[in-house]
Amino acid sequence: MNPRAMVKLSQLLNSRNKLSQHKLLGESIGNCFKLTSSAAGISTSRQSYGADGKISGRIFADYSIFKGKAALSAAPVLPTFSKLDSGYTKVERRGTIMLTFRPAIGERKYDSEKKQLFALSVTEIGSFISLGPQDSCEFFHDPSMKSRDAGQVRKSLSIKPITDGYFISLSVTNNVLNRTDRFTVPVTTAEFAVMRAAFSFALPHIMGWAHSTNQHSNNVGQDFSKVHPQLAAASEWDR
Amino acid sequence: MNPRAMVKLSQLLNSRNKLSQHKLLGESIGNCFKLTSSAAGISTSRQSYGADGKISGRIFADYSIFKGKAALSAAPVLPTFSKLDSGYTKVERRGTIMLTFRPAIGERKYDSEKKQLFALSVTEIGSFISLGPQDSCEFFHDPSMKSRDAGQVRKSLSIKPITDGYFISLSVTNNVLNRTDRFTVPVTTAEFAVMRAAFSFALPHIMGWAHSTNQHSNNVGQDFSKVHPQLAAASEWDR
Amino acid sequence: MNPRAMVKLSQLLNSRNKLSQHKLLGESIGNCFKLTSSAAGISTSRQSYGADGKISGRIFADYSIFKGKAALSAAPVLPTFSKLDSGYTKVERRGTIMLTFRPAIGERKYDSEKKQLFALSVTEIGSFISLGPQDSCEFFHDPSMKSRDAGQVRKSLSIKPITDGYFISLSVTNNVLNRTDRFTVPVTTAEFAVMRAAFSFALPHIMGWAHSTNQHSNNVGQDFSKVHPQLAAASEWDR
Amino acid sequence: MNPRAMVKLSQLLNSRNKLSQHKLLGESIGNCFKLTSSAAGISTSRQSYGADGKISGRIFADYSIFKGKAALSAAPVLPTFSKLDSGYTKVERRGTIMLTFRPAIGERKYDSEKKQLFALSVTEIGSFISLGPQDSCEFFHDPSMKSRDAGQVRKSLSIKPITDGYFISLSVTNNVLNRTDRFTVPVTTAEFAVMRAAFSFALPHIMGWAHSTNQHSNNVGQDFSKVHPQLAAASEWDR
Repeated sequence: MNPRAMVKLSQLLNSRNKLSQHKLLGESIGNCFKLTSSAAGISTSRQSYGADGKISGRIFADYSIFKGKAALSAAPVLPTFSKLDSGYTKVERRGTIMLTFRPAIGERKYDSEKKQLFALSVTEIGSFISLGPQDSCEFFHDPSMKSRDAGQVRKSLSIKPITDGYFISLSVTNNVLNRTDRFTVPVTTAEFAVMRAAFSFALPHIMGWAHSTNQHSNNVGQDFSKVHPQLAAASEWDR
Repeated sequence: MNPRAMVKLSQLLNSRNKLSQHKLLGESIGNCFKLTSSAAGISTSRQSYGADGKISGRIFADYSIFKGKAALSAAPVLPTFSKLDSGYTKVERRGTIMLTFRPAIGERKYDSEKKQLFALSVTEIGSFISLGPQDSCEFFHDPSMKSRDAGQVRKSLSIKPITDGYFISLSVTNNVLNRTDRFTVPVTTAEFAVMRAAFSFALPHIMGWAHSTNQHSNNVGQDFSKVHPQLAAASEWDR
Repeated sequence: MNPRAMVKLSQLLNSRNKLSQHKLLGESIGNCFKLTSSAAGISTSRQSYGADGKISGRIFADYSIFKGKAALSAAPVLPTFSKLDSGYTKVERRGTIMLTFRPAIGERKYDSEKKQLFALSVTEIGSFISLGPQDSCEFFHDPSMKSRDAGQVRKSLSIKPITDGYFISLSVTNNVLNRTDRFTVPVTTAEFAVMRAAFSFALPHIMGWAHSTNQHSNNVGQDFSKVHPQLAAASEWDR
Repeated sequence: MNPRAMVKLSQLLNSRNKLSQHKLLGESIGNCFKLTSSAAGISTSRQSYGADGKISGRIFADYSIFKGKAALSAAPVLPTFSKLDSGYTKVERRGTIMLTFRPAIGERKYDSEKKQLFALSVTEIGSFISLGPQDSCEFFHDPSMKSRDAGQVRKSLSIKPITDGYFISLSVTNNVLNRTDRFTVPVTTAEFAVMRAAFSFALPHIMGWAHSTNQHSNNVGQDFSKVHPQLAAASEWDR
């Protein structure tokens, strides 16, 4: 992501009140009752098919685990693409699996105002899906890495084996606010199996490979070496 | 198709009046025939392509195992979606893998009138697909949970290892009718491998992740933070 | 498959000479040079995109292993579907993985006239993909099972572990012609891994689950219980 | 993205004249920039949706690992297809996973001019994805195999286990230039898990099976034996 995009993000975040409706989105899935019982009131129109019978717009789906002290939700974030003038499209920014932690504030109630995020990168997803039953791992993020705010906030996600599954814990230390938020969610073997399967499924989409391989109509009778000359080196191509 | 299933098909084919045709249909695609098996009857037209050469309408496919005392069918049930006024679409209800048990009522005949259903949730599917060769598991459902009828009907699905595969058993106790139905289907390792592969494949569809990641046309040159503000926290987004 | 379809197949096979061009098809993939050096001469037009830029017609792809005494090719065969008058579509016949064996008749030459087929069913594919390194299995087919020709031809496919991979062998005994054809192809661990991955990928397509779950546009705002009433039993549905 | 990669991006962004922009592009999407990095330059327009809201043209996505002495990128290369006069489409050339190695020429800088390619075949991908933690393997390619230049260039790719992951090494010996290039990239277990998952995902696409099985609209009410006569042998078809 380039610096300008960062600025834009900050601006968006600072002027975020008018978008409060969207804030519910992260929560609406897997915990649907919250959505429609919200004081703010989204009217879910539950439309029938669109005019063309297709789902339009973006689709949100997460996998949420609600436990005693906190809830953990996971959702894929797709990559973004840039279209070049040449007509080619490239991955601009790879996707992630966004983990969201919310503290419990009562029975089956979780506080979205105090949520914390952790975006698993492609390689961290690789760690996650290859964890053995006795393995543990820990990832560290500095959200302001390489900026002048580096070190102000430090996040650590740890996955540690327990008898039936794992503890997934997030610690967020904000040195400016002098505050640390901690969340721990016990994840059963079955729940972890769902995450593993879902993350494995999502991985090629997050990497952009699902997009680059899903071009069924593009290579009939096409001379690949013409459109992809740098891969057409006789040395490797003509095998 | 194994020889025994073949026998049943042959019998059905030999006495192929309208009613038996429904039975054939019902056996081959699970428990779907009920939908339209009105007195009026179905004429299966076996049409060629539709006007646009596409399959329209819903497609039913299950995986059925016919054994001596009962038959077990499994079929994915997709999630449902709600379209918000904002244009976004969210998962309204996650899908399941619907298991259907039918008791045998003669050689290669199964009684659909006495069938019992058990809908595996996403997390129960996680248990299922991560079962080791010696593992067992059991799930309990109260179909009327949280309603005033809670406790009237109790279902229990158990999966227990045998020499070559598993016993999959369903017990349904109806306290109102004072009656318990029990089904046990021996599932070979090969059959279980098919179920595991098929359930694993279906899982991201059931969760809605296949839908949310399959939006190839939606993110060229799009500023993700605008459409997904709640995930755009600089702290995790800008990595 | 119903008896009438069998008859139709026989007719097709008996009048098959005009289709000789197609015979090469099975061979053309993975061993492409054969296709265009054929005396019969198919002119592969290598067209650019169709008018709409899409691949039209059927696509053939197999995975072929060429060894000293025989060649083994594997290709998925999709299920067929029937459209009901109600607008629903069901699987009419599940697909298979079609294995084709051809004997060697010279260096890198294989005799398609003497090829033998073996169609792995869904459950046999389950056996195949769950084979451990030391496991073996064997499948028996009687192509005329339940017809008056039952027992005339018997096929046996065996998979047996060797140091690096498996021997995959087909034996076809024709009691009418008083003849047995045998093929054995050594398959390396790497080649078997390709088959396992490809068969696992193909399995949900062969079962029809890839079709039944790939209906993204069909369930926005739709009341599933209305279109799928038999699965909407309160007992299992409203969970 | 790891911190080191971040540095490189920042450097590139700071000196972002047209040429360096190409380098950024090249790094981020593999070795594709060569295609259009003519003197005329690329202006990356980062367009919003196309007229039809779809990504058009080809999409490039790779997975890159930047280490101290070299960088390794992997990207799927799709098969090409030929359309026969009969209307059928066949795989003309199977795809590969193209590995690209670039030597480091400074901190976080890699020399694309000295890159070397190695195209993993379908069976080599089978070896790759089935490697156990202690396994190693080695592949040899002669890019001019069977031509008069055979033996001039020899490539060897080796994968050897280390404590946490593998060394992936490429050696390219050019007997004409009397020169050998060697690259070694340490790949962590997590990175290898990403490659394994991505390669497994890509495999059916590379083989053409994703294309041949993804023909949902083609088999409603169609008599398979008519379009696929060579597979319609009664002996195996009618099961």
